[in-house]
Amino acid sequence: MILDGINSPADLKRLDIKQLDLLAGEIRQELLESVPKTGGHLAANLGVVELTIALHYVLDMPADKIVWDVGHQSYVHKMLTGRRDKFPTLRKKDGLSGFPKPCESEYDSFATGHSSTAISVALGMAVAESTGKHNKVVAVVGDGSMTGGLSFEGLNNCGQEKVPMIIILNDNEMSISKNVGALCNYFAKIRSGKRYNVTKIVVKKSLEKIPLVGKYIVRFIEGVKGFVKALLVPNVLFEQLGIKYIGIVDGHNIKKMIGILENAKELNGPVLIHVKTKKGKGDKIIEKNPSEYHSVSENCVIADIYKKAVSGNDVPTSYSLAMGNKLCQLADRDRAVVAITAAMTDGTGLTRFAQEHKDKLYDVGIAEQHAVTFAAGLAASGKKPFVALYSSFLQRAYDQVIHDVCIQKLPVVICIDRAGLTGRDGETHNGQFDIAFLQHVPNIEVFAPSSMAELELAMEYAYRATTPVAIRYGKTDPCEHRMVCGDVTKWHSSSINGTERAVIFACGAMVDQAIVAQDKLLEMGIEVVLVNMLRIKPIDVEMLDSMKHIGLWVTVEDGCITGGIGSTVAMYAANNGLNVKVKNIGIKDNFVPQGSIKEQYQMCGMTPEDIVEAIKGEL
Amino acid sequence: MILDGINSPADLKRLDIKQLDLLAGEIRQELLESVPKTGGHLAANLGVVELTIALHYVLDMPADKIVWDVGHQSYVHKMLTGRRDKFPTLRKKDGLSGFPKPCESEYDSFATGHSSTAISVALGMAVAESTGKHNKVVAVVGDGSMTGGLSFEGLNNCGQEKVPMIIILNDNEMSISKNVGALCNYFAKIRSGKRYNVTKIVVKKSLEKIPLVGKYIVRFIEGVKGFVKALLVPNVLFEQLGIKYIGIVDGHNIKKMIGILENAKELNGPVLIHVKTKKGKGDKIIEKNPSEYHSVSENCVIADIYKKAVSGNDVPTSYSLAMGNKLCQLADRDRAVVAITAAMTDGTGLTRFAQEHKDKLYDVGIAEQHAVTFAAGLAASGKKPFVALYSSFLQRAYDQVIHDVCIQKLPVVICIDRAGLTGRDGETHNGQFDIAFLQHVPNIEVFAPSSMAELELAMEYAYRATTPVAIRYGKTDPCEHRMVCGDVTKWHSSSINGTERAVIFACGAMVDQAIVAQDKLLEMGIEVVLVNMLRIKPIDVEMLDSMKHIGLWVTVEDGCITGGIGSTVAMYAANNGLNVKVKNIGIKDNFVPQGSIKEQYQMCGMTPEDIVEAIKGEL
Repeated sequence: MILDGINSPADLKRLDIKQLDLLAGEIRQELLESVPKTGGHLAANLGVVELTIALHYVLDMPADKIVWDVGHQSYVHKMLTGRRDKFPTLRKKDGLSGFPKPCESEYDSFATGHSSTAISVALGMAVAESTGKHNKVVAVVGDGSMTGGLSFEGLNNCGQEKVPMIIILNDNEMSISKNVGALCNYFAKIRSGKRYNVTKIVVKKSLEKIPLVGKYIVRFIEGVKGFVKALLVPNVLFEQLGIKYIGIVDGHNIKKMIGILENAKELNGPVLIHVKTKKGKGDKIIEKNPSEYHSVSENCVIADIYKKAVSGNDVPTSYSLAMGNKLCQLADRDRAVVAITAAMTDGTGLTRFAQEHKDKLYDVGIAEQHAVTFAAGLAASGKKPFVALYSSFLQRAYDQVIHDVCIQKLPVVICIDRAGLTGRDGETHNGQFDIAFLQHVPNIEVFAPSSMAELELAMEYAYRATTPVAIRYGKTDPCEHRMVCGDVTKWHSSSINGTERAVIFACGAMVDQAIVAQDKLLEMGIEVVLVNMLRIKPIDVEMLDSMKHIGLWVTVEDGCITGGIGSTVAMYAANNGLNVKVKNIGIKDNFVPQGSIKEQYQMCGMTPEDIVEAIKGEL
Repeated sequence: MILDGINSPADLKRLDIKQLDLLAGEIRQELLESVPKTGGHLAANLGVVELTIALHYVLDMPADKIVWDVGHQSYVHKMLTGRRDKFPTLRKKDGLSGFPKPCESEYDSFATGHSSTAISVALGMAVAESTGKHNKVVAVVGDGSMTGGLSFEGLNNCGQEKVPMIIILNDNEMSISKNVGALCNYFAKIRSGKRYNVTKIVVKKSLEKIPLVGKYIVRFIEGVKGFVKALLVPNVLFEQLGIKYIGIVDGHNIKKMIGILENAKELNGPVLIHVKTKKGKGDKIIEKNPSEYHSVSENCVIADIYKKAVSGNDVPTSYSLAMGNKLCQLADRDRAVVAITAAMTDGTGLTRFAQEHKDKLYDVGIAEQHAVTFAAGLAASGKKPFVALYSSFLQRAYDQVIHDVCIQKLPVVICIDRAGLTGRDGETHNGQFDIAFLQHVPNIEVFAPSSMAELELAMEYAYRATTPVAIRYGKTDPCEHRMVCGDVTKWHSSSINGTERAVIFACGAMVDQAIVAQDKLLEMGIEVVLVNMLRIKPIDVEMLDSMKHIGLWVTVEDGCITGGIGSTVAMYAANNGLNVKVKNIGIKDNFVPQGSIKEQYQMCGMTPEDIVEAIKGEL
């Protein structure tokens, strides 16, 4: 196997084109064998095998730098840079990260995870290099990521700074699901060549308007095959922004890409190379259904995923699906109800909504800021918008929540999926900040359901609300339990008989953990009250007051402690001179690395055992 | 006066073009008389007089809707919609807002303040109208706002949704200061016609490549004057995104604009009308120096501002200037130091830096997300970037601070100007959230200097730091005082003699207020300790422990209480079972309306008197 001889990019440079092509096949085979075992991003990596080989062949890493936008397509890069043997640990605790990480390898020049950052990062690096060692900088950006406003801000600044850098537009017609938006239509036009027909008419009309000679020119031109095609460069958009455009390049042709990259790296200014690749390239099933294989779970069988996707699944086994089903109900009832997603129809559980209420679903592409502000506009004109976003991506729309939704108290509902700890994607994908960044925003109510029943109640409440509401729920499996809040505006407590020595205040996924802790403590003879804080904001002051006779309060949340619900409970106690000691359990002041969600709970000291220990330690 | 007869847009519709032109002159005169008295945005409003008249002539407000991007150009709109008599109260407490506000008038369809939201909002409204009453929706967006990624996300989605809406691109070649970026160069090309020369060469080359007939076509074309001009429609960028383009229209010609708007509102899809206006139109001094007159202060004289601008001012009378001066020093010392601003060179105090270190200043235009991620890229490649942004605009880069700077611990310094309460611009411009949204982010240190000396020390510390640092300071005048922290990593307390009955913990602008309170209390015979919390994050645990013998802790900050530094102090007390009562003074759970900063302190209960009362009430 050629791959066995590749320990660093230097080994790659000794191969000829034929060997490089063989290597691509070997890597693809290895991905297909390895990733379904550990779980991970499969389709995207199958698509960039040749591109990654070509880049490493031409560049001198690590002096030269590649910034991988989003970063889930960096597996091939990791294989070629000495980390092939670590693939059995991919996405596991203390194992290989699914994203680039400078702390993992000097070949990873920048950590990514969220979309649309690469152009800005690469421009920063290129500007620094332009006054330094003049190493080459390459940003690899998917077409889906181009719809994010940050990508545009970066492009706009590239055209201004004019320093040498290469942007690879990896055009696979997909973000996670099928791409949307005018820019994507534009890319499609370039690919298909259809633009020529469209624009031909425009050109013809313009020409005809020229006094005297116009119509003769038109006639002349019409006789010249290929004229319009040659005339209308497909790159107007980028060229107008001051960025040289090269395209379209076959992203699976290593030889061609090497030639183009060699030329591109000698240019004096920014250049965009439009590369066409196929997500899932090399596996017939995946090629046809790349969305289903965007991210595969541990120990999966490729064919099974396909069968499952075809058979469908209506039983809501996750908060996402429960949210989607409830939203279908609300939309059946009221035509004002609309849903907004940012390239995450399936991920946020809106697949059924997309089928049943196609005309009420707005997939705005990867554009979280717009998703929220667009929803504000819809609400201002009488619609009832539900915006479904992942917690860590909502971070990007923080200002829009404040400025466009909350200042005016518009009745927008934000459904925050993947709140709390999310497992294998690690630091960049945990939703650990949402409680903290929403709690201090005026005019919004925030709910953290701990069961499907509560999720539905909260959505019903949000539907009727005339002011902003956010509902956050995790990736964890929902489970019905004994602590469900019947009235969403009130916290619910377990029964009190006066002999309890502590109160556990918990919300969301932590209610479940707290129930286990309560039971364990009872077994030890320690009675504690358990309070489910379904509505995080505003807090239930009556409930807090009713607990002031119990001297130990323990708060548990799957979010950061600083600025979290626990800090507000502590503040309440301290401000009202309550004679209670407060222990705040949650995510301490750090980012939480990858692992299973359970392992993450362990890392953070948030397990039932930790709760038990905290209480025993204080009593 | 015609203006006297205009109480609503209906009155406007009865006038003929000649009268409308006269009206424009009267409005302009009134703006020039009125705004210098109250203070406010002068240049931008002088530029949109005719545009606003034309819009109201053509639209049927309030059924039809105008969304004013940023919104500081809405004065003429306010005059024409029954609020002319309120102009003496402009930007005053309980007076007329300087921005559109639905709670102020039914003619204000959406509240704005931050840049680049209008297209997304208008699209939301237009989508709602497309299934409703089909009222018209217009977004008025300055060319400066187009560089914000949110504008692009909105445009991209417009081309997808294809519902009727009008975008007015109000092209005055300015954001607050001179515009930057490739898009702005593109607009300039359209305006000047220079593009034809540039692109002619490209076209010629393309044509020449056509086999056999290419060179003949070129020769033929070169003989036809105007050919290339007619051929290359200047609107490619928008048309490629699926948005019809009309331009360039003289924004000071009411008749022409009415004609175009009448046509545009009958179109079936999105249309962008490129209007050219002149900031400051009608006043020769302002026209020449629109930046100086972007926002004028109370009781100013037009000519004085000009004189002051010409004479320059090197004495740092504000934190902004002090920051700029210190940054010049650091850049003199170390060529790795660079500054980044988002269209706010002057506002953030970087005017001198721009002169002395032109090649080290990166003005990225209105693009806060990019500013931060670009800085991360610079830092990753060995530069020492200082990003200067206003606090409320940094909200837009919250995710970038977390994701691109803090996860990787990159040594980016964020200089947060206009932190805390900022006065006359009201809700949208207060920097009330920065402590709360940064305190919970791991790996960043946060400073809140209360004097110029502390600002300089913090910058010196930040310069040497190898991890992220943020420094927040307000619009208030800095004053030297007795509580300055000499060591930036330690909180500083007033002397303790054991008879103190309370501790006041204050930071930033609040230290000054707390000193006055301490003095007042002493006069009343109540001794209190005062602690200056210069470094907000991490907190000074030693100092907190040293105060646990004093039973009343009062925290004072010019930020929101929830999630603020006070909540962290309270949490520390509650978690450590300290027998102290905590009172948190700061901004309660609401947005703070306009007024002088002093009035805002009064609204929020943050004056020295409030601190005194809080302490007296508890003792």
